[in-house]
Amino acid sequence: MSLERFISDAISPWMKREGPESDIVLSSRVRLARNLQQFVFPIAADKESAHEVISSISSFINQEKDVPEAENLEMLVMEKLKPIEKRVLVEKHLISPNLAEQAKYGAVLMNEDESVSIMLNEEDHIRIQCLAPGFQLEEVLHKANVIDDFIERNADYAFDEKRGYLTSCPTNVGTGLRASVMMHLPALVLTKKMSRIIPAINQLGLAVRGIYGEGTEAQGNIFQISNQMTLGKSEEDIMEDLAGVVMQVIQQERAARKQLQDGLKLQLEDKLYRSLGTLENSRIIQSKEAAKCLSDVRLGIDLEILPGISKTILNELMILTQPGFLQQYAGEVLTPDERDIRRATLIRERIKLENR
Amino acid sequence: MSLERFISDAISPWMKREGPESDIVLSSRVRLARNLQQFVFPIAADKESAHEVISSISSFINQEKDVPEAENLEMLVMEKLKPIEKRVLVEKHLISPNLAEQAKYGAVLMNEDESVSIMLNEEDHIRIQCLAPGFQLEEVLHKANVIDDFIERNADYAFDEKRGYLTSCPTNVGTGLRASVMMHLPALVLTKKMSRIIPAINQLGLAVRGIYGEGTEAQGNIFQISNQMTLGKSEEDIMEDLAGVVMQVIQQERAARKQLQDGLKLQLEDKLYRSLGTLENSRIIQSKEAAKCLSDVRLGIDLEILPGISKTILNELMILTQPGFLQQYAGEVLTPDERDIRRATLIRERIKLENR
Repeated sequence: MSLERFISDAISPWMKREGPESDIVLSSRVRLARNLQQFVFPIAADKESAHEVISSISSFINQEKDVPEAENLEMLVMEKLKPIEKRVLVEKHLISPNLAEQAKYGAVLMNEDESVSIMLNEEDHIRIQCLAPGFQLEEVLHKANVIDDFIERNADYAFDEKRGYLTSCPTNVGTGLRASVMMHLPALVLTKKMSRIIPAINQLGLAVRGIYGEGTEAQGNIFQISNQMTLGKSEEDIMEDLAGVVMQVIQQERAARKQLQDGLKLQLEDKLYRSLGTLENSRIIQSKEAAKCLSDVRLGIDLEILPGISKTILNELMILTQPGFLQQYAGEVLTPDERDIRRATLIRERIKLENR
Repeated sequence: MSLERFISDAISPWMKREGPESDIVLSSRVRLARNLQQFVFPIAADKESAHEVISSISSFINQEKDVPEAENLEMLVMEKLKPIEKRVLVEKHLISPNLAEQAKYGAVLMNEDESVSIMLNEEDHIRIQCLAPGFQLEEVLHKANVIDDFIERNADYAFDEKRGYLTSCPTNVGTGLRASVMMHLPALVLTKKMSRIIPAINQLGLAVRGIYGEGTEAQGNIFQISNQMTLGKSEEDIMEDLAGVVMQVIQQERAARKQLQDGLKLQLEDKLYRSLGTLENSRIIQSKEAAKCLSDVRLGIDLEILPGISKTILNELMILTQPGFLQQYAGEVLTPDERDIRRATLIRERIKLENR
């Protein structure tokens, strides 16, 4: 397969669009956790019960014609996927590592542009996830709510008047809402401000994580900011609090970028061009170094220091150089050393596609 | 001035030619130390005496028509040169740092292709130096001897039947001969063999130094190997011993290059391409890093890993990125920080001149 074709197939269609503030906010995401009243929760469910959940949902999915948000959903059953295929879905953020590795009877429903994915039999019966490029929290929440309402018209949710939606893990009880944005914050890292900002954000009840969620490092200066609390706060308040913090972080990142450009322009140019040179020339590259260099190159694009490179290169290559994609592109299982070689090759070939 | 013009003026014509074994031996050099009988040695000479030495030699220089080795010699008097001009001559290895900085009444005679330079009133009255590309020790000794004979026909050397030629420093007494080769030994450094080879060479009575002589570091993996002894050995024996060791080092470097290519080809390619990427992209570069990367690129050219780059680029840029040349090219005195910026620019522009 040609690299262009592979990338075009690999990257979710929604990711190719640009959204508001997309020089800093790469994507916005909302996830709603829901459970069906008549079935035991997935952690306690047997095979039969889990399959009933899936067939129950299948019975009404794709049946309503006036809900475009939930149209043409395709079902993928985890049992039937190869490990590399599941890994690729994780790397695209379409399913959780938990669904890929732990959920015995898991499945996922996805729409055509992959901006909607509904996990079934993960920790909860239903996890509705909506994604959008840039800073679009309201839009993704709206979309998730439409889908939520559609499901609720066809099924009985486990709901308690006082506690709200009931979930497997108490941290999700209430609204069942987790909203997050993926932010590229290279200037705050370079100016060493990020280490002060993270605890400040945590104090506001929000979590700051790496690109692949809890416990992962912030590779490529990409940070995921999300709400922690789901209980005792309305959906609107949760979203407002998160959006307010994100706006402040955007402003601080912009200020830090300006500070770098004003005070250390040549040092910055040197750093960013060197990273481009590394990506264009290396024959062996580990994911951490690749992420660092990709972050530099993306900053260079945003600051108009590196001309003629498309903005999507960071998002694309951060995903394409993950182990699952590398192995999918190679068409075989690869050792870590082999992956470092394939990663370097894929990055070089991708950069060559740019008309510079 | 255009960079092409500047380089063409800056690099000695003899350096643009290729010599035998020039994948490893960059250049060969012979120097003969001589003094005139009727004058006190330069270290003790007053202005009048020093000027007499120069006018005595001037009287017969360029007068004989059948000595092509000593034709069209041009005299440069140190007093009349600016510090940057002297520095440039040192960086081209045409005069010694000692002549540039210490010798009050020093001068140099140079031929058109700069393969012959005769220093006057350095440590000794006369230091005949001949240079050639590649491994050509016999040729440069022959050339130096022809010039030596020519001078001896016109002047009385300080010579003692038992001790040979008398010189200011006892380490030069006897033949007054110092022969050296400049070798590029990246594979011996990479395979960590150089640290064992240097003491072995020293034990044979030869010295191993950096590119700018005694006390300088071996920047760019370039080592200068020269004889230490001038007394008690004939010129032929001195040259034979040196040439024998050089041949062995050439063989060992070739073996180390083969070892790298056989065992670590991809790691080597990765390293060499990354260095090229650094040179093509950096905006600020210190001389040490530049030398390291230039050495890698030259190795890549010699091993046919990096295609389409001319071999002379290492020799050229090792010289052109020295402080004197950078300041000459800039047309002004530069701080070390400014030099790091100019160095990066000059290297980028030079590489762009290649038809890749």
